[in-house]
Amino acid sequence: MEKLSFVGKSLPRKDAEIKATGKALYSADLDFPGMLHAAAVRNPRPRIKINGVSDAAAKKIAGYRALVTYKDLRGPNKWPLVDTDYPFLPEGEARFEGETVALVVADSHRAARAAAAAVEIKYKELPFETDPLKSLEKGAVKLYGQDNVFSKFFIKKGDARKALAEAAYTVEGEFTTNYQVHAYLETQGAIAVPQPDGGLVVYTTTQCPFYVLDAVAAACGLPYNKVKIIQTVTGGGFGGKEDVPALVASHAALCALKTGRPVRLIYDRTEDFRSMSKRHPSWSRVTYGADKNGRITSCVVKYVLDAGAYSTLSPIVLWRGTVHAAGPYEIDNVLIETYAAATNKVPAGAFRGFGQPQISFAQESLIDELAAKAGRDPMDFRLHNLLDPGDITATGQELTSSCGLRELVEAVREKSGWDKWAENGFRRVEGNKARGLGVSAAYYGVGLGAKGRYLDRAGALVNIYKDASVTVNVGNTEMGQGALTVLAQIAAETLNAPYGSVRVEEVDSTKVPDSGPTVASRTTLMSGNAIIEAAKPIRDNLFKTALDMLKAKGADIAGMMEASEGVFSIADHKVTFGEVVKECWNRRLKMCEEGWYAAPRTTYDMKDGQGDAYVTYSYSADVAEVEVDLETGVLRVVKLWGAFDVGKIINPRLAEGQAQGGMLQGMSWAVYENLVYRNGIMANPNFTDYVIATTADKPEYDITFIEKDYEDGPYKAKGMGEVPLIGVAAAVANAVKAASGARVTSVPLLPEKIWKGLEERKAAGGKK
Amino acid sequence: MEKLSFVGKSLPRKDAEIKATGKALYSADLDFPGMLHAAAVRNPRPRIKINGVSDAAAKKIAGYRALVTYKDLRGPNKWPLVDTDYPFLPEGEARFEGETVALVVADSHRAARAAAAAVEIKYKELPFETDPLKSLEKGAVKLYGQDNVFSKFFIKKGDARKALAEAAYTVEGEFTTNYQVHAYLETQGAIAVPQPDGGLVVYTTTQCPFYVLDAVAAACGLPYNKVKIIQTVTGGGFGGKEDVPALVASHAALCALKTGRPVRLIYDRTEDFRSMSKRHPSWSRVTYGADKNGRITSCVVKYVLDAGAYSTLSPIVLWRGTVHAAGPYEIDNVLIETYAAATNKVPAGAFRGFGQPQISFAQESLIDELAAKAGRDPMDFRLHNLLDPGDITATGQELTSSCGLRELVEAVREKSGWDKWAENGFRRVEGNKARGLGVSAAYYGVGLGAKGRYLDRAGALVNIYKDASVTVNVGNTEMGQGALTVLAQIAAETLNAPYGSVRVEEVDSTKVPDSGPTVASRTTLMSGNAIIEAAKPIRDNLFKTALDMLKAKGADIAGMMEASEGVFSIADHKVTFGEVVKECWNRRLKMCEEGWYAAPRTTYDMKDGQGDAYVTYSYSADVAEVEVDLETGVLRVVKLWGAFDVGKIINPRLAEGQAQGGMLQGMSWAVYENLVYRNGIMANPNFTDYVIATTADKPEYDITFIEKDYEDGPYKAKGMGEVPLIGVAAAVANAVKAASGARVTSVPLLPEKIWKGLEERKAAGGKK
Repeated sequence: MEKLSFVGKSLPRKDAEIKATGKALYSADLDFPGMLHAAAVRNPRPRIKINGVSDAAAKKIAGYRALVTYKDLRGPNKWPLVDTDYPFLPEGEARFEGETVALVVADSHRAARAAAAAVEIKYKELPFETDPLKSLEKGAVKLYGQDNVFSKFFIKKGDARKALAEAAYTVEGEFTTNYQVHAYLETQGAIAVPQPDGGLVVYTTTQCPFYVLDAVAAACGLPYNKVKIIQTVTGGGFGGKEDVPALVASHAALCALKTGRPVRLIYDRTEDFRSMSKRHPSWSRVTYGADKNGRITSCVVKYVLDAGAYSTLSPIVLWRGTVHAAGPYEIDNVLIETYAAATNKVPAGAFRGFGQPQISFAQESLIDELAAKAGRDPMDFRLHNLLDPGDITATGQELTSSCGLRELVEAVREKSGWDKWAENGFRRVEGNKARGLGVSAAYYGVGLGAKGRYLDRAGALVNIYKDASVTVNVGNTEMGQGALTVLAQIAAETLNAPYGSVRVEEVDSTKVPDSGPTVASRTTLMSGNAIIEAAKPIRDNLFKTALDMLKAKGADIAGMMEASEGVFSIADHKVTFGEVVKECWNRRLKMCEEGWYAAPRTTYDMKDGQGDAYVTYSYSADVAEVEVDLETGVLRVVKLWGAFDVGKIINPRLAEGQAQGGMLQGMSWAVYENLVYRNGIMANPNFTDYVIATTADKPEYDITFIEKDYEDGPYKAKGMGEVPLIGVAAAVANAVKAASGARVTSVPLLPEKIWKGLEERKAAGGKK
Repeated sequence: MEKLSFVGKSLPRKDAEIKATGKALYSADLDFPGMLHAAAVRNPRPRIKINGVSDAAAKKIAGYRALVTYKDLRGPNKWPLVDTDYPFLPEGEARFEGETVALVVADSHRAARAAAAAVEIKYKELPFETDPLKSLEKGAVKLYGQDNVFSKFFIKKGDARKALAEAAYTVEGEFTTNYQVHAYLETQGAIAVPQPDGGLVVYTTTQCPFYVLDAVAAACGLPYNKVKIIQTVTGGGFGGKEDVPALVASHAALCALKTGRPVRLIYDRTEDFRSMSKRHPSWSRVTYGADKNGRITSCVVKYVLDAGAYSTLSPIVLWRGTVHAAGPYEIDNVLIETYAAATNKVPAGAFRGFGQPQISFAQESLIDELAAKAGRDPMDFRLHNLLDPGDITATGQELTSSCGLRELVEAVREKSGWDKWAENGFRRVEGNKARGLGVSAAYYGVGLGAKGRYLDRAGALVNIYKDASVTVNVGNTEMGQGALTVLAQIAAETLNAPYGSVRVEEVDSTKVPDSGPTVASRTTLMSGNAIIEAAKPIRDNLFKTALDMLKAKGADIAGMMEASEGVFSIADHKVTFGEVVKECWNRRLKMCEEGWYAAPRTTYDMKDGQGDAYVTYSYSADVAEVEVDLETGVLRVVKLWGAFDVGKIINPRLAEGQAQGGMLQGMSWAVYENLVYRNGIMANPNFTDYVIATTADKPEYDITFIEKDYEDGPYKAKGMGEVPLIGVAAAVANAVKAASGARVTSVPLLPEKIWKGLEERKAAGGKK
């Protein structure tokens, strides 16, 4: 590959100025003449039979305009997701506390809220279930189908039970994890604006404009070409703006159609907590076996996700967890069974990591236990078993390329001073505080993989104007992660256009075809490749014209033309990108192209879970240094070493930011975040009572990238959004074990759980 | 070519409903939160030196916000057109009455108007010239360059003077034509909306969104990728929304940048009259010579356009007039010289026909005179001389294809009962009224031709959604002529998509590359071909997938697949467009493409006016039946027969409408429209005093299309917007001559001019 001009450099964020100066317009900032305001009327109980909805009292509120219920739908009452069990608006039954039952529209936000509070839902309470394991039991309340199972998967490789029976060392454990709230800065919101032809333009904060398009078209009975979705500047997503904005936008759209006016629907923080998706709580039982040489021979997993009241994205989340449940190791015998169970709680959905952090916490905790049983250093044990290029995963996939896991583990070993810590059993005590060191490793399938393969394609529109400024449109979204910047770098590199001349815009669903969701660390890979596809023919025109121009200037075209930093040159003869573009326009060459990239086919078989699950994988190794108060169990994460192979790094500073953010969010989930349900009612739907890590809690970071080229990636990049989060909880838990002796099997690692471990250990006569 | 499903049918207009029901949003209908209103401060005199502009009095008006002058420009004060003599806002000198000198911005339209009236322009009057022939004289006031000539062209073929000297019959005449006002229903208007990143979105009624983009970017010093131009539903153009909306939009943009608020600038009718472009007044002297066999041997033309105060589009308008000045005849010796002269009047610009109707009026009037001298029937004489396929035009271009002129002339001869009329010398008298019949012929170069060849390209974006609805974006505009409909038919045909599923949108400059102006009857040809280019690869995917699906259904794929009316079939096996699209999406095939079409190169040499001027030509033959009041000279056009070869007719009903509209507009110009300047001040800038034909004046129409395939056109179409207008004036003038004996050489053919002819004839002893 030629020398890179723009890729691999820490170029400034494209959206830095408008965000730093407050000029960026988020969904709540948008206004339209004649705009009305909507508010949701929410189910107050875990499960109800709806006998009616009355706005008699609401009508007395000044500015009240309309009540919108399922009766106002213009299409089937099935929100089109993986399944269609979630209605746009409930008809007979509402299934979780906080579910939108109806909407009101009024002249102001205040009037809409007052009217929503005044609407009366007439209902009868129904029996409900909040425990996923109980939900799976025979005789449970019927919530979904015959067995309350939204989705289940299996992986069967070799004979795991036999191998377990024959193993020299075995470990088994049960683990649980709680919800995680996305805690995006910007709550959900959408504005729907009726159009003269009966269509709609919908502005919304979203990761997935095309899911919004699907839903709005379905709810409103409109053809897709009469619905335009514009992604507003999006104040964070983390998976929380994958599926749910489609529901919010559909509600706004129904209100707009009913009133014939623009309607804005913005959630407040509490209703966002109560009704929007979360990371799935989980329960898992994991068993590993190893032979006497310390080689892992067997892995048996049962993994249950608490999916909440509707299926939403649980099948996809569960499948990803399933594929990665055995951990990043070559194991000949694997048996995994996984379930997404229905309960009467808020539907859980997508969250950075997508079903993997939960099971990673379990299996990586147990890997440490297994190493201990086998008498091995946890780092050595991992190096002995981990996936190398050419190895076969749990699903029988051969890792043909781009696998740097060994180097990652070696990097964190080295940088964390692991071997020095080993001398003290990874524990250092000072006063009442004990520090400990723990490690974890993970791999992460990039993109949607076999389960989402119909969606694994992306478009891009690349347009070079006469003045040599460039616009790029894609179907994946900027949501804070830096997509606009990274994709501009890819476009600039491919076209040899000055970086400053390239603008990448927020998504407009009418400019690019359905490019799937902005999830699964797929944006750089998918949209990046689509941009390259679009740019290629333009690049050919540019390069050919540049060569002609250099020849006309007297350059010896037998010499190699260099294209670098927006300049084309042969020896001392140079033409700029701007000059070449001008000449291309004079020649009436095509300077605008629509690109398209479809990921290679996967071969996965859902029956036995064998085959190529994902086209490629990113990798991580984490070491955590923690400090535990031996009296109180209070935990502080002191430092996190993370090493990541996400292929080529397009923008090192942004990659560092992604890594830090992912590690902090993983740590926050591991240590602090604790959503509480009491009798089916969410008890702490706010940031006063639901604690997340702040910058004051942030650990010291040490981040290393090992760039293993992925040949099918744009400039050999893979995806990096999620992998930095996945392994943190296990590394922290392993460090807590080292520091305190307490093996906490439940996330979050609250002081009372660690304290309980300390007490048990004391009772068993362990050292302080 | 396969059987056509959608092309060639009178399918309903795509915009019929929103226009008929009043839902369409024109520029003045748009509103934005915080929007301010601008109004222009206009030059009250023909030519002034500006000594200053004071808003002292305006500041006292409630709601007054800002004064915008040339000092607020953020780029060079040169509106980028063919030339750059027209400043965005004048600095030292204003050159015509009504020119915008400055703008005011206020909270309401009313306040803005009041403030504009209160602004004081401090000025000194300068000497001015309003007569283009005087302007060309030595010693004239200097208005432009050394000679007041904005542009001049020559055509020299053979030796026209020598041939004239040797001719058996010669005729010579001087002709003049007056302005024509576009009289679009919707006046000029634009709304500029500042964006968070410092860019602008500009909404405007326009034929040429990319001219607007050029101008706004230049005036505001913005890169093109920070300016988005959205064409609002456009209430008529006729050339009057070619160049000038760019100025209006730039003014709105400067006001928006200065105030940081959305600004709407809408012209009232009077200021639209005073300041916006018009059809050029003209003067011409034409000489023809013919040999004794009635073969035209020579044509000498001097043609002067009154361009007004700035060059604007005069070079292009003049060039088109130049190319066609000899008429649609094969003449071996041609000498044409043409000039666009500067005067201190409103700049003339584009108007349907673009410099041709004026010279057609002159030369076709004289062809009748020449026929008379040669003792021939005017129809026979034309048939004897007209351009046939394989003939050579005045510019030396061989007409290799698609030339149906002979059939057109024969058609109007037949349908008008010409030979019957011939028995009475084309005259029938009843009481004080005499009726007469007259003929004309014309040809019209389709597209921009050699003079505009850098602009003769167009883009299109074709996108098929998952639900099989289709959106098409192009860079040419709907302005009432039916482009949305005709282009939808072309897209439907190419994709085999049901017509109802195809939507073509008003232009958004960010969706397609600069596609040149919507002028010169080029939209069907250029955007149509661009759509086909975009649709081709999608069509390949659709057709291949349909074949697979039919095969899977058991069809014998050795059989020929038919694609018709949105259904694909082999014998009794059928799949619908919708089913095929769904399967294409499942296969992740590319369903969105950007197309590009560049017209073939022309070979024209500006030095001698020889070469291929246009890629192809449309043709017309007109017969007019008129009634002249022999006492008053009052003229009524009773019936117009028009025959047109515009290639394949995409939509017969729309084509009929275009033809009727063009003929009526040509008739209105020929008979009624009379803009009056007195001492450099426009005397009748309103529809009370400036009379246009109304439906009450409309003649009976008899319209014939002879469809000569143009192989390079979309479904073999050429262009038809303008050719129906061009020949009307001459046909009417020739009919007036037949009816009254008066050869009126000046358009409009006002009663007093005809009456004068009648009087002269009476004085000469002619019959009543």
